[in-house]
Amino acid sequence: MRNLTMLMDYYELTMSNGYFAKGMKDRQVVFDMFYRKNPDNGGFVVSAGLEQLIEYIQNLKFTAEDIDYLRSKGEFSEEFLEYLANFKFTGNIDALPEGTICYPNTPIVTVTAPVIEAQLIETMLLLTINYQSLIATKAARICRAARDGGAIVMEFGARRAHGADAATLGARAAYIGGAAATATVIADEKFGVPAIGTMAHSWIQFFDTEYEAFKAYAEVYPDNCTLLIDTYDILQSGAVNAIKVAKEVLEPMGKRLKGVRIDSGDLAYFSKKLRKMFDANGMEDCKIVVSNSVDEFLIKSLQKQDAKIDSYGVGERMITSKSDPVFGGVYKLVAVQNAEGEFIPRIKISANVEKITNPGRKKLWRIFSRETGHALADLLTMYDEVVDGNEPFAYVDPVKPWKKMKFVDVDVKELQVPIFRDGELVYDKPTLDEIKEYVTYQLDNQVWEEEQRFENPHTHYVDLSKKLYKVKESMLESED
Amino acid sequence: MRNLTMLMDYYELTMSNGYFAKGMKDRQVVFDMFYRKNPDNGGFVVSAGLEQLIEYIQNLKFTAEDIDYLRSKGEFSEEFLEYLANFKFTGNIDALPEGTICYPNTPIVTVTAPVIEAQLIETMLLLTINYQSLIATKAARICRAARDGGAIVMEFGARRAHGADAATLGARAAYIGGAAATATVIADEKFGVPAIGTMAHSWIQFFDTEYEAFKAYAEVYPDNCTLLIDTYDILQSGAVNAIKVAKEVLEPMGKRLKGVRIDSGDLAYFSKKLRKMFDANGMEDCKIVVSNSVDEFLIKSLQKQDAKIDSYGVGERMITSKSDPVFGGVYKLVAVQNAEGEFIPRIKISANVEKITNPGRKKLWRIFSRETGHALADLLTMYDEVVDGNEPFAYVDPVKPWKKMKFVDVDVKELQVPIFRDGELVYDKPTLDEIKEYVTYQLDNQVWEEEQRFENPHTHYVDLSKKLYKVKESMLESED
Repeated sequence: MRNLTMLMDYYELTMSNGYFAKGMKDRQVVFDMFYRKNPDNGGFVVSAGLEQLIEYIQNLKFTAEDIDYLRSKGEFSEEFLEYLANFKFTGNIDALPEGTICYPNTPIVTVTAPVIEAQLIETMLLLTINYQSLIATKAARICRAARDGGAIVMEFGARRAHGADAATLGARAAYIGGAAATATVIADEKFGVPAIGTMAHSWIQFFDTEYEAFKAYAEVYPDNCTLLIDTYDILQSGAVNAIKVAKEVLEPMGKRLKGVRIDSGDLAYFSKKLRKMFDANGMEDCKIVVSNSVDEFLIKSLQKQDAKIDSYGVGERMITSKSDPVFGGVYKLVAVQNAEGEFIPRIKISANVEKITNPGRKKLWRIFSRETGHALADLLTMYDEVVDGNEPFAYVDPVKPWKKMKFVDVDVKELQVPIFRDGELVYDKPTLDEIKEYVTYQLDNQVWEEEQRFENPHTHYVDLSKKLYKVKESMLESED
Repeated sequence: MRNLTMLMDYYELTMSNGYFAKGMKDRQVVFDMFYRKNPDNGGFVVSAGLEQLIEYIQNLKFTAEDIDYLRSKGEFSEEFLEYLANFKFTGNIDALPEGTICYPNTPIVTVTAPVIEAQLIETMLLLTINYQSLIATKAARICRAARDGGAIVMEFGARRAHGADAATLGARAAYIGGAAATATVIADEKFGVPAIGTMAHSWIQFFDTEYEAFKAYAEVYPDNCTLLIDTYDILQSGAVNAIKVAKEVLEPMGKRLKGVRIDSGDLAYFSKKLRKMFDANGMEDCKIVVSNSVDEFLIKSLQKQDAKIDSYGVGERMITSKSDPVFGGVYKLVAVQNAEGEFIPRIKISANVEKITNPGRKKLWRIFSRETGHALADLLTMYDEVVDGNEPFAYVDPVKPWKKMKFVDVDVKELQVPIFRDGELVYDKPTLDEIKEYVTYQLDNQVWEEEQRFENPHTHYVDLSKKLYKVKESMLESED
């Protein structure tokens, strides 16, 4: 397991050394990790990365070399460095189970811990959840668009990923979001994401002719032969040679050509032409795979054009979430314990209104219709409030706070679950396939289709309890 | 050192197993790694990542677990698996020295090796060079824009980077491109990129008042005190408290307030207001740092508005190259050795014209004006051609091939240097600071300003020797 303890912003250390110097390091605080805006102006996010966050917390350790390096900066006290040398996370972490659909301002991870510990884990907590949530969300958009047309998605992005972790964890996140497989071998070995692949253009170019290249491949892989047919000319050369190999090499062995792939050209035009050619040759079972600049928007456009595509290889536009490559998760202090052990809410005000935080130690609930099972809204309450769907529960819509609103006769679920208690893992991690199925279940059964469309999706409500709303209002007023 | 051997596309393995099965694995081939389009429609790219590519090649090793995993896929022969278990790269690699300014279609890395070896390293070669070149290029754009206004850039992006490698290597690449420092501690410990940082909003919120938070920080860090002043209200609270701490805490100790940072609001408006406030209080030396959604375009806009900014903290828009997050480097087979030991050129044709490759084993030269030292053009020749600036050298501009063109009285430099020979490293790696200085030197002295502007930059010419042009033309014609 890799130790990523030193992957932090330097200010986590200057602040921690400061809390230490001021004798305040053990004061309990609460931090919420949440985001403010859905990527791609979409309607939801698939939260991901919790398993890697758990590993990070469990592997936290400053080595002797780390301490020497920090000493060389000349800014940290010896007492603080000694503290770091013995550092262990002793706090509580609650989080949305990996794969939970979430929304702007819903806490994905909440840390309740001594301030020095909660501060030191900020950077890795953010980057771990931010990247995988970004890719799982993008993958859900792309894979469900493909599914609408009866096609599957394979993740092909390693070479354009932002480094080795992005390639590996991006493949994991894409699988959570709905991808059927990946090209990235290490994601299979490490996480069990099925790895697949056949040939690059180099295989074709290596042989003297395209036919020889196809024939050689069919001979080595008669049971799993998908041919890349756009090295020279898709229709006049690639498709002709593919059919020839199917008839002359595979069929005499009792085998079938499994598929062809095109990686350039007009995918709508060529896929329709190819479908006709293959069908006319009794190759109705030969799949058509495409893989050039594919994303959810291109898939929708290809479907409108009645393209004949069975499978999409999606590379750079999924592994980087190219159309919106930043997931803006933040980690904000929301409460500080006082001498009496009470958590006093804290707020961050800002010249940018959307940057104002929801103060206090809170709970997050999802409200479901008892009739349809759909998620009607999310609800943030103070930590000591209990929401019981059998009793009417008055709440505030923060956009229209003057309206009197109540949840009546609903199913209610508290969304965060305990992950760490006093530094010990108390969570049974689900398998990757369980996470993937959970995403599908929610999107198929709980999340409105109106929240899943690409154009002006419905905004999921994140309401506040009256108690929380009053706390927030009074804090904003006291700042005026 | 991390072993990233299994980070490869599955098709590298199916193809390699295929070359192996067909008895062709040791045939020597040449692959060029190059890209087709400058990011952000810019005029150039800063190549980066070579040091990590060297490490990857030196650490290549399939472990027993890797072999077991591969066996479980049921597609690979035992002989091939045994070959992998003893795998070692034995080929040659030539590359542009890290930090070399480069252009579309100029080979950044060239691999000359047995086909099975050249194939197996494709994915990591691409992802290593692609990501760091993307970030070094973006950083060069941002940092030089800041420099035009007398400001420096600090890299603040870890939390929005695409995973731990992106945060670490992105900080390295940003430094190569011109960033003065990073917030990412591990990039300092590992690579010597100076790490800096002071406080987050959480430090301010943790204390009962903003003044107490500032005072506590000034007491712990009197020599290095930069205060974040936008937690509540920049002008009425943050700036007032910062001045108060400067006067009441720091100046009595003989210390100065080093700077303030704002992370929200109208950066032009507030920076000008703050400059006036500080100057009126005898704090002309108090630096103004800003850090919200900064990139090269915002910096240019702030300069036009005469904003008073000394330092930019640049986060997500640099570490993800947000406006163009994909560096499209590709790795293409360009030659295969025949039985006589001759390298026979190979070409990839495509329905997308820009995807047609430059065939053959080649050399890349840069042509400089003897008068000004400016780079006039790049020139691709066949491997056996020699370009001597003292003799007129006829070339072909591939955009206007009918024009008779000659280089006369120029300085000529061959750009790629030997990195590996027969699998052994033969290259003296420069230090990170040498790489950074090389970038600055080229951009200040060799690359035209017209290639560096953001709007419609001049296109750097990449010309072909007459010999190479003829080879390419004849291959394209023979495909018709």
